[in-house]
Amino acid sequence: MKEVYLDYNATCPVAEEVIRAMEPYFSRYFGNPSSGHRWGQAAREALEEARRRLAQVLGVRPEEVVFLSGGTEANNAAIFGSLMAQPQKRHIITSQVEHPSVLNPCLRLLERGYEVTFVSVDETGLVDPDDIRRAIRRDTGLITIMQANNEVGTIEPIAEIGALAREAGVPFHVDAAQAMGKIPVRPDELLCDYLTLAGHKFYAPKGIGALYIREGAPFSPLLSGAGQEKGRRPGTEPVALAVGLSRAAELVTKDLAQEAQRQKALRDQLHEGLLALWPRLILNGHPKQRLPNTLNVSFLGLEASEILSRAPAIMATTGAACHDRSVSVSHVLAAMGRGPEEGKGTIRFSLGRPTTKEEIDQTLEILERCLKSHGASGGG
Amino acid sequence: MKEVYLDYNATCPVAEEVIRAMEPYFSRYFGNPSSGHRWGQAAREALEEARRRLAQVLGVRPEEVVFLSGGTEANNAAIFGSLMAQPQKRHIITSQVEHPSVLNPCLRLLERGYEVTFVSVDETGLVDPDDIRRAIRRDTGLITIMQANNEVGTIEPIAEIGALAREAGVPFHVDAAQAMGKIPVRPDELLCDYLTLAGHKFYAPKGIGALYIREGAPFSPLLSGAGQEKGRRPGTEPVALAVGLSRAAELVTKDLAQEAQRQKALRDQLHEGLLALWPRLILNGHPKQRLPNTLNVSFLGLEASEILSRAPAIMATTGAACHDRSVSVSHVLAAMGRGPEEGKGTIRFSLGRPTTKEEIDQTLEILERCLKSHGASGGG
Repeated sequence: MKEVYLDYNATCPVAEEVIRAMEPYFSRYFGNPSSGHRWGQAAREALEEARRRLAQVLGVRPEEVVFLSGGTEANNAAIFGSLMAQPQKRHIITSQVEHPSVLNPCLRLLERGYEVTFVSVDETGLVDPDDIRRAIRRDTGLITIMQANNEVGTIEPIAEIGALAREAGVPFHVDAAQAMGKIPVRPDELLCDYLTLAGHKFYAPKGIGALYIREGAPFSPLLSGAGQEKGRRPGTEPVALAVGLSRAAELVTKDLAQEAQRQKALRDQLHEGLLALWPRLILNGHPKQRLPNTLNVSFLGLEASEILSRAPAIMATTGAACHDRSVSVSHVLAAMGRGPEEGKGTIRFSLGRPTTKEEIDQTLEILERCLKSHGASGGG
Repeated sequence: MKEVYLDYNATCPVAEEVIRAMEPYFSRYFGNPSSGHRWGQAAREALEEARRRLAQVLGVRPEEVVFLSGGTEANNAAIFGSLMAQPQKRHIITSQVEHPSVLNPCLRLLERGYEVTFVSVDETGLVDPDDIRRAIRRDTGLITIMQANNEVGTIEPIAEIGALAREAGVPFHVDAAQAMGKIPVRPDELLCDYLTLAGHKFYAPKGIGALYIREGAPFSPLLSGAGQEKGRRPGTEPVALAVGLSRAAELVTKDLAQEAQRQKALRDQLHEGLLALWPRLILNGHPKQRLPNTLNVSFLGLEASEILSRAPAIMATTGAACHDRSVSVSHVLAAMGRGPEEGKGTIRFSLGRPTTKEEIDQTLEILERCLKSHGASGGG
């Protein structure tokens, strides 16, 4: 039986085109961009070309792009970096459905005497911009809201929040780790000051990411060292990985609308098929304002872990993918008002560029057999 | 004219064997180690196998190895991580010849009200363990000394410092970024509590490193996020890069003594050849207790930048390689008592595993022509 991977929100394979783009920079053009000699300068040029190309995809200036190790570092750097540069600001606004790499830095700041407002979401996972507006204080130093939720795919009203943040003069960070490659990601349209990208969520390797920092936005670097990345992120620049990140960004944006449409059709086919198999299926996340590849559903009356253990050929997840070993009912579902009943029956299916109609058909066949035997054993 | 790369202390090419080891984990076994399904578990196993193999090379326990983005992050994590976990300790001991990724975190702590003792070095770059001993106070929270200096190659008396740190009950961090692959690196022999590795200094990619954290050593993580690396370093683990790091560590240690001897012979041939070309040549660094691949010399009466610009086929460096764009006379040479005269004539040649006798012969030929013409133009 062929295995079906439906966990692209957890991580993606590196695209062949990205691997080919990186290869020359591992062993042939391997210089240190800080070395003054020819080979160093060749590496410097490759790095700056990667930066220009990524900036072009995002519609920002190359100097506003900083390469770093991934989404977690980017979120930490944005949050700590913004607040450390504004020592008089002691208040942060975020939401209850952010990724742990946003929530936990906020909790750490709480321990250091900061105040944090965690705005709630509605039953579809949406943040209400009015809640953000009401939470803004004179000492608010940062608003940080994700562009799209990793678990349920709900797309937040970022441009509206950006507009009110700008009006209030409060720096605004957007975690776009899960949005990139699935919906348009443009800092100028989102009206944000910082934006997080995680390479492995869009077919670049694990271990590379980027942080957009708008020119003039307050920022104090998280790491201290030599002066790389204009002093914003020290450490020898990972040239090959940066080239890969940049190439992946181009790859996933050049046919974005068309590919999103294709995945959405397959995703909706999966949803309808599952509803036919199990009428007590409920959708988690916004019915429309949602990533085109994400389907998070609760099989009421069933246990997700049991379904997936009976269907080991299907690679999907019962919790938040990056950390589902330690999750029982996720903080995202809880914030959306889902109880243990819905929580324990929850599976997230997330599609990707390699996903085919055959794989969706096969998934439905496998789950049909699995749910029948499950029902027969009294679990339904 | 074939170009000769003699800047391996700045960075190394990724070994072919390392590239091959990483490849399957980019697109074939690409799962997220935190995913509970088969593909996630396959990635988890690859990651833990890499950790076991790296631990074996170092002679430590796998649980004591944390993967992260490189030497700069490892140094920052060790320094901040150790001190944040000991809030009552307000004093740090380091040396004047450390890498910027050690010195600058110490300076940042100084700004936060910590006290820092920067011990001096002798004219060969050696730290005196007695200076460390005398600097230890009741509130000393960390001693951080590099195993070998990146610019001049001097090998510090780490085991002696480790013994006195342990006796005094002070945690001890060793930056082994430049030592790994050139001399033995064994935390149990060095008697350290934390040890930094930077992949690209020993034929693994840029963008991956590791931090050894002795079991029981105080440590508070630098980044906040999900629970990866047993809570010590959040972020989706870069499986392919970790596999590469581990393979590179095995590669450079399996024939360490023999390869060190080979490079040392070539390095000494280069030194003797240069002395014959320019009798006013002085060696920077310890004559014996020095990395086998490193030759840092000052051409008294000449300007290093001019020599190298006349010999563009030779890839060597005039300053500290990772950041020589902004360096005039390096802090290392200054700490060793070298003045502007020596400083401006300084070139660091650093050899690597691919370096051949032919390359050394060629380097001497090129420099001979270059120095003759230089002398003829009145620069000598």
